[in-house]
Amino acid sequence: MWLYLAALLVLYFLLRWYRERQTVENLTEKYVFITGCDTGFGNLLARQLDTRGMRVLAACLTQKGAEELEKATSGRLKTTILDITSTESVAAATEWVKGCVRDIGLWGLVNNAGLGIPLTPNEWLTKEDFENVIGVNLLGVIDVTLHMLPLVRRVRGRVVNMASIMGRLAPYGGGYSPSKYGVEAFSDSLRREVIPFRVQVSIIEPGGFATSIAQNITERLKTVWKWAPSEVREAYGQQ
Amino acid sequence: MWLYLAALLVLYFLLRWYRERQTVENLTEKYVFITGCDTGFGNLLARQLDTRGMRVLAACLTQKGAEELEKATSGRLKTTILDITSTESVAAATEWVKGCVRDIGLWGLVNNAGLGIPLTPNEWLTKEDFENVIGVNLLGVIDVTLHMLPLVRRVRGRVVNMASIMGRLAPYGGGYSPSKYGVEAFSDSLRREVIPFRVQVSIIEPGGFATSIAQNITERLKTVWKWAPSEVREAYGQQ
Repeated sequence: MWLYLAALLVLYFLLRWYRERQTVENLTEKYVFITGCDTGFGNLLARQLDTRGMRVLAACLTQKGAEELEKATSGRLKTTILDITSTESVAAATEWVKGCVRDIGLWGLVNNAGLGIPLTPNEWLTKEDFENVIGVNLLGVIDVTLHMLPLVRRVRGRVVNMASIMGRLAPYGGGYSPSKYGVEAFSDSLRREVIPFRVQVSIIEPGGFATSIAQNITERLKTVWKWAPSEVREAYGQQ
Repeated sequence: MWLYLAALLVLYFLLRWYRERQTVENLTEKYVFITGCDTGFGNLLARQLDTRGMRVLAACLTQKGAEELEKATSGRLKTTILDITSTESVAAATEWVKGCVRDIGLWGLVNNAGLGIPLTPNEWLTKEDFENVIGVNLLGVIDVTLHMLPLVRRVRGRVVNMASIMGRLAPYGGGYSPSKYGVEAFSDSLRREVIPFRVQVSIIEPGGFATSIAQNITERLKTVWKWAPSEVREAYGQQ
């Protein structure tokens, strides 16, 4: 009995050791498309995968972001300008990616682009504030994914969506948590949907990191407070 | 030791019995505003609360729905036409409610209105399909809540949001699960936010009920399939 258990345990650790040793091969022939590479996680990921020799296709929101990233990386890395809230922009980026990867297909799609603000009590905000955040963090991610999926499917690639710890908990008001909860839902249903095509869907749920998304929170809070309706300001008081 | 445990157990059941016996008093002086009263849960709730003597303010999407509901209920129940995707319509309904409840305030707000379709693989859809569902089920709920909250706060009332079991699980694609996940997030952060005002926020998570939201699913599936891009139709095949 005990021997049997010990054998199982050894087998488990052997399997785990084997699995952990697996690494992705032929990095130099693999294309990865990353959104939101101007700053933060997207920028860091683009640089790191470029250093490792992958073929990085980096989408930036601004021309400045794209130029700075190109300066800091190898000639393999290519950039394009992409506003994920615009379906035309997403369609154009998809055509650009098609032209880059040709028959090789897209090995990885990283939906990183996202907005963090405003993190305030819900009542200080209007529907438009929610709409803006959800338009980028949720609908933008969905739009990019639906456009790129055929390229990913061709090589049995993977989709990586940037969710958040705030996709599980909603400590603050505003559209951020609802949008990230939505990314969790979309990723879950998509994961089941593309299993038959051997496409993988992963999410990443960061906690608090000092990326640019987390800067100026206090200032933004004050701005939103100024906009809040007088009735709400009376109810809350100037703290 | 055992005596102590038994005493605790008895105390627990006594407390529970007491809590379960609590009922809401003075129903006839309490106003409840319910959205989506044309059919389904909203319609049933409006009728039931009217039977119990509450002052029901029922918002319907269609004139027909409002007329039929009025015919089937007492003179206490009042109806208005509301499209929760339009901020003007929400603002108008808020003024109407203000006029009805005057100084009494709004004892309850029930965010019931919602869209169920389309429940299909994500890839058969476009961003617009997601946008439509999220616009009603999530942004509409947020807009109505933000508008009505001052009236609810005045009487330390409650907000009841219609979520879904699909706000916890995402078995199908489409915007329904992301929108209901979002309602969970919004309700969670709002609940914490309004505790100091003694306002309560609840959610209801129905499983499968044969309301009109669940009708014609097969037909709708066929329609969406016809719209899907040819690339997707090839990849999936005619089952």
